[in-house]
Amino acid sequence: MATKDSKMSRRPGFELKTPKGTRDWVGSDLAWREDILFSSLTYKSQTISSVFKRHGGTPLDTPVFELKEVLAEKYGEDAHLVYDLADQGGEICSLRFDLTVPFARWLAMKKITHVKRYQIAKVYRRDQPAISRGRLREFHQCDFDIAGLYDPMIADAEILSIIAEVFEALDLKITIKINHRQILDGLFAVAGVPDEKMRSISSALDKMDKMSWSEVKREMVQEKGLLEEVADRIGDYVRRSGDIYEVLQFLESNPGFSANENMKAGLHDMRLLVSYLEALDVVNKVSFDLSLARGLDYYSGLIFEIITKPPSGNVAVVSGEGIQSSEQRKPEPSQVGSIAAGGRYDSLVGMYGKRPIPCVGVSFGVDRICTVLEERREKAQKPKIDVYIMAFSGKDSNGFLLERMMVARQLWDAGIRAEFAAKVKPNLPQQFKAAKDLPLAVIFGQDELSAGQVRLKVLLPDNDENDTKDRGQLVSREDLVEEVKKLLKITISN
Amino acid sequence: MATKDSKMSRRPGFELKTPKGTRDWVGSDLAWREDILFSSLTYKSQTISSVFKRHGGTPLDTPVFELKEVLAEKYGEDAHLVYDLADQGGEICSLRFDLTVPFARWLAMKKITHVKRYQIAKVYRRDQPAISRGRLREFHQCDFDIAGLYDPMIADAEILSIIAEVFEALDLKITIKINHRQILDGLFAVAGVPDEKMRSISSALDKMDKMSWSEVKREMVQEKGLLEEVADRIGDYVRRSGDIYEVLQFLESNPGFSANENMKAGLHDMRLLVSYLEALDVVNKVSFDLSLARGLDYYSGLIFEIITKPPSGNVAVVSGEGIQSSEQRKPEPSQVGSIAAGGRYDSLVGMYGKRPIPCVGVSFGVDRICTVLEERREKAQKPKIDVYIMAFSGKDSNGFLLERMMVARQLWDAGIRAEFAAKVKPNLPQQFKAAKDLPLAVIFGQDELSAGQVRLKVLLPDNDENDTKDRGQLVSREDLVEEVKKLLKITISN
Repeated sequence: MATKDSKMSRRPGFELKTPKGTRDWVGSDLAWREDILFSSLTYKSQTISSVFKRHGGTPLDTPVFELKEVLAEKYGEDAHLVYDLADQGGEICSLRFDLTVPFARWLAMKKITHVKRYQIAKVYRRDQPAISRGRLREFHQCDFDIAGLYDPMIADAEILSIIAEVFEALDLKITIKINHRQILDGLFAVAGVPDEKMRSISSALDKMDKMSWSEVKREMVQEKGLLEEVADRIGDYVRRSGDIYEVLQFLESNPGFSANENMKAGLHDMRLLVSYLEALDVVNKVSFDLSLARGLDYYSGLIFEIITKPPSGNVAVVSGEGIQSSEQRKPEPSQVGSIAAGGRYDSLVGMYGKRPIPCVGVSFGVDRICTVLEERREKAQKPKIDVYIMAFSGKDSNGFLLERMMVARQLWDAGIRAEFAAKVKPNLPQQFKAAKDLPLAVIFGQDELSAGQVRLKVLLPDNDENDTKDRGQLVSREDLVEEVKKLLKITISN
Repeated sequence: MATKDSKMSRRPGFELKTPKGTRDWVGSDLAWREDILFSSLTYKSQTISSVFKRHGGTPLDTPVFELKEVLAEKYGEDAHLVYDLADQGGEICSLRFDLTVPFARWLAMKKITHVKRYQIAKVYRRDQPAISRGRLREFHQCDFDIAGLYDPMIADAEILSIIAEVFEALDLKITIKINHRQILDGLFAVAGVPDEKMRSISSALDKMDKMSWSEVKREMVQEKGLLEEVADRIGDYVRRSGDIYEVLQFLESNPGFSANENMKAGLHDMRLLVSYLEALDVVNKVSFDLSLARGLDYYSGLIFEIITKPPSGNVAVVSGEGIQSSEQRKPEPSQVGSIAAGGRYDSLVGMYGKRPIPCVGVSFGVDRICTVLEERREKAQKPKIDVYIMAFSGKDSNGFLLERMMVARQLWDAGIRAEFAAKVKPNLPQQFKAAKDLPLAVIFGQDELSAGQVRLKVLLPDNDENDTKDRGQLVSREDLVEEVKKLLKITISN
């Protein structure tokens, strides 16, 4: 035990903490998240993973780190946020940045041509953390993706249905903002954006959920060098966002747009999508947002982002109100931003293998969803133990430790959650304090023990050792489990 | 899409793979592990986490990496196996090596004086991997620990009861090999091991589960420079391992041992432990193994390792058979080694904070347990979808895509797992192939549709589109969910 006496706290300057942007999760906070993802306490069978399963999803678990080359050139200007492992000899690796790239790597490596897979795991980004707003460097993602060559927009529509079903299960009102990369490209082209400025103008437009149109326009014109009249045309198009039928109508009726090949292809996709979303009863949750651009490089078709705001259904129509209406669409301070997002990425898998495998998928921001649902969470701590096993500690009592242990084992074997004081001779006030807020106590006394019995006492709602009126019922040791179950009215489950 | 056309597979020398010593987990392999850990399909409520919960365990989730200083000086000669993150500016971090050190860091940081916590997570060791034998660089641990100052050996006994309960739940016969660091120290002192050789002789002895006694003795004498007669005395003591009562009797009746303070303290602990293990009905699973040493530096009292071999109860008694009996205890080739291990570590938390918090805990080797249970696993793939929604594709059929989507949404909303072909006009053989091994099909045809009906057909055990005798029952769309549920005889759960 060479290190027994070294104390890190004595080292000058060392602060005992988790690494920047990370935190521990414990007890009810952790249980709350598990509940939303997996278990069936709060939301019964309506959890995220049960929605995934009823769509035939296969679970996937990939290593927390990947070969650095696998992640290279996938994240555009965010690439510097990737965590690298130290070079300790051997392969150079990085922590996963999302779950999409490991999925694409797995598809290519295993030569899988079609699958529905889901993955729930932590991802890592060396971003500026804002822990109070739930923005961490280690955070959870929860992805569902459909890979395979199918008829157009059917898989895309199923993904949007999954999104609708997940938030219906969580009883959360949402809007699915959708757009299409080819429509965006067409729109830029028709507005007069030069080819070489397409991506930077797209990035600027993507900030519409954080800034007003006038700020976005300033960035386009002053920083990116776009002609003001081109920027104004973009602003004019973009303020048409809202009702999906009206936006489609607007785009289809404009001869300038319908002459653009990208726009034509995108509009064809969107018309198909609308008919599928009608059949799937999802269309009323969808808003067509021409300002939605999405940062990541790999999207190639439909893109979407989910916010908690309900759809307005309103489309600003008076040209002069373009700027005004965009400013009104600035997010509420209470909003956490998008709580899920995704899109179609048909070329990513082809970067790893010989065959391009078309994919479409969604990533749910688990931590943000937990933040949004937080208000609804029951603050009252549920008892985590059913029965506390106590000893009356008179002068001639030996503390009944072995007897308490035997009863504990009896209850554990029956699936009942039980505890006892880890003391040979515990005193009664300490035991009642430990049993605070628990439902039941088994109490050992010498008289009862001699008669092969224990006392079984209902403790809730307020436990008090001075409550001498109710000393509990006398129960024989053989009947104890049955009586406890009866009082707990539980069907033993997990 | 700047990177659209770059293909990594074209780069010379790049092999698409997961990093060395890691693997992907998918589908039934992953579900099997989740089942053992969390869910209730195979083992009903008898899963590892349900045992933890009925002992009042609180779940904890810590970051995958810790400040490098937190891990420093905890792992003795294994320290070089720690994965470090690259220095990208800011803090220097390492991937967690086990779940014990993060737990101790958390206790000290949060100034927690007593808790039962469990954690199930992956840990990272840059060891030589042997994937075929389930030895990976990224692998799962599943820890339960009790922190707090209690009367001696009560928490230790509860940990051993948890071990017994977990393997009873998994229906796996085990032996819990136990020893005590102070008994080991006393035994070495009485045998004549010099103080400065204590740790290296302990490491050599720890290899008794991998080597014969004659090999271990050679290492002690030739490599570590121990006198042969001292080594022989150690061999003589160690072969007494087995029945806990007989080993205690042997150690207590030897005047040389009872004069040693370490030995006295250890024997007092062990006597207490035996009485508690009797009360908890665990004593019959325990074997007292004086050769058990455990590698990690931080253990200070009881130590234990769990193997799948049933207890023999035999203790070799003839002196000359010492070597022989040890050689017989060499593991079977089929054994995976220990499937769980742990012990008491009373000084680790004090290395981080001002207060030493006594702790005892166990770590279950999830991957090895899965390997052992593998034979028992049902190889038959369970269908992951309940209903396949098909279209009869006659010449005048439009493929009924929208209708199939509407029915899918109807079934999904009822919690029924359903799929349909993502084709506008799928052909029938393809659809029957996709529905292979699924229990039910909903079939759309023009005549039925006109009457507001569909056909509901039971497919299992062997699906064949040529099975024209059974075209299924006619069901109205409104009654479909009820009829499907009736046929599946399912209570909708996760």
